[in-house]
Amino acid sequence: MKKISEVRSFGGRQLRYEHDSKVLNCVMQFSVFLPQAAAKQSVPAVYFLSGLTCTDENFSTKAGAQRVANELGLALVIPDTSPRGDDVPDDPEGAYDFGKGAGFYLNATQSPWSTHYHMYDYIVDELPALVEQELPLTAQRAIAGHSMGGHGALVIGLRNPERYTSISAFSPITNPTDCPWGHKAFSNYLGDDKDSWKQYDAVEIINANGQSLPIRVDQGLADGFLEEQLKPEALKSAITAANGDGEVHLHEGYDHSYYFIASFIEAQLRFHAKHLN
Amino acid sequence: MKKISEVRSFGGRQLRYEHDSKVLNCVMQFSVFLPQAAAKQSVPAVYFLSGLTCTDENFSTKAGAQRVANELGLALVIPDTSPRGDDVPDDPEGAYDFGKGAGFYLNATQSPWSTHYHMYDYIVDELPALVEQELPLTAQRAIAGHSMGGHGALVIGLRNPERYTSISAFSPITNPTDCPWGHKAFSNYLGDDKDSWKQYDAVEIINANGQSLPIRVDQGLADGFLEEQLKPEALKSAITAANGDGEVHLHEGYDHSYYFIASFIEAQLRFHAKHLN
Repeated sequence: MKKISEVRSFGGRQLRYEHDSKVLNCVMQFSVFLPQAAAKQSVPAVYFLSGLTCTDENFSTKAGAQRVANELGLALVIPDTSPRGDDVPDDPEGAYDFGKGAGFYLNATQSPWSTHYHMYDYIVDELPALVEQELPLTAQRAIAGHSMGGHGALVIGLRNPERYTSISAFSPITNPTDCPWGHKAFSNYLGDDKDSWKQYDAVEIINANGQSLPIRVDQGLADGFLEEQLKPEALKSAITAANGDGEVHLHEGYDHSYYFIASFIEAQLRFHAKHLN
Repeated sequence: MKKISEVRSFGGRQLRYEHDSKVLNCVMQFSVFLPQAAAKQSVPAVYFLSGLTCTDENFSTKAGAQRVANELGLALVIPDTSPRGDDVPDDPEGAYDFGKGAGFYLNATQSPWSTHYHMYDYIVDELPALVEQELPLTAQRAIAGHSMGGHGALVIGLRNPERYTSISAFSPITNPTDCPWGHKAFSNYLGDDKDSWKQYDAVEIINANGQSLPIRVDQGLADGFLEEQLKPEALKSAITAANGDGEVHLHEGYDHSYYFIASFIEAQLRFHAKHLN
């Protein structure tokens, strides 16, 4: 992996890298924040998966997460949201909710998407193996995300409890088999067999297998996507039915933006720190 | 003035407005953060002037200032950096350091710039009069800025000590009569009479009139513009010679970006709160 940039931030280091991804079959960029503590010893990492249209830079520049991450001695690993490059097929109409910037953290099985769109394997295996070899990171991991990335964090955490300590999400797509964004993505990436969709649906996973890790969700009540796309009540019901360790915090007046994320990222990082230590 | 958007942020309100500016002769947008305390009483405001290429949105989305502003009960007033619109003349070659996005917080005297480029009067008079009439703000003001906006904060604060309590700046252009950015801007906006340039040069103002307000400057030592454009030593010398109340903090490893601003905005807001109260 090749370093593209490095700047100091809150006493730590904000880094950006580029590498050839075998799993995604393209060149990928990602960002990492290393707290000051990482100069002396390896530190645990919180992976943050971003939402539709984002790259690794949205969370890096707008969430204000570095302050608390440095205080808690946590690294932040911030991947891109899809495979990239001229060879990677995109939504034929350039829509924001499918194709590039919208990988949905799954392994596509349908042509032409299956050549590159393997974000699930990238996040679960390839990226952690790379950064834990090259950077001062322990194998202690927590996973978080926003919107489509909240969906990714829930699905990846719930399916791999041995690899993470805890899951958090802002405004996640909790039940993608039952919303327009999920229908569009899953029918294209995975095809018409709706049974194959369930492995990428947090509500379906909890209903089938129970809840394997502690979860914290923050959801704004002035979020324009709340009822049609996000459905926090579906997740809450699944957690309750599974008798799981989960909190869904609803916040009056907050929307879907990074102003919301910035307001509550401290609470989510403190939640993860409690489980990582 | 017309509200364009409102979102909640750290318990307060992040607002964006549009209005017809008489001074600038065009439609302008600006952002305001109102802390929770402003729901019950009028609050003091910190004006933040942004740098080259910026609008009001860079500071609003990237500095993470709302958390501490809310805690301290301070409003943030965040103007754009130049007049805007199709009627406003721009750099003929579209350069980033002159014209739109580069108003330099002065009153232009030369054609064709003098029709619109009056950012000095806009920041000193028109904008405060408007927001103090329409929003729950007291007439207590502090002024801050970044790079070109750090220059603006220093010049406007030093020349109007009765209107502000304190000045702060990140990576300011301290001595624009003696750097390439300043030469280009001043020769075009103000013409060849170099005496007219001195009224917009913080170092010249302190050398001529002394230092009228407390100043805090933060400057990164890995800032690529440090030696050619910013010259913190010139400001430090002027403050020392004037026996003024000023601190220039130099920070190892930090660059010119919003990662730097985010790391030290808390210190600057606490500095202003001390003087505003």
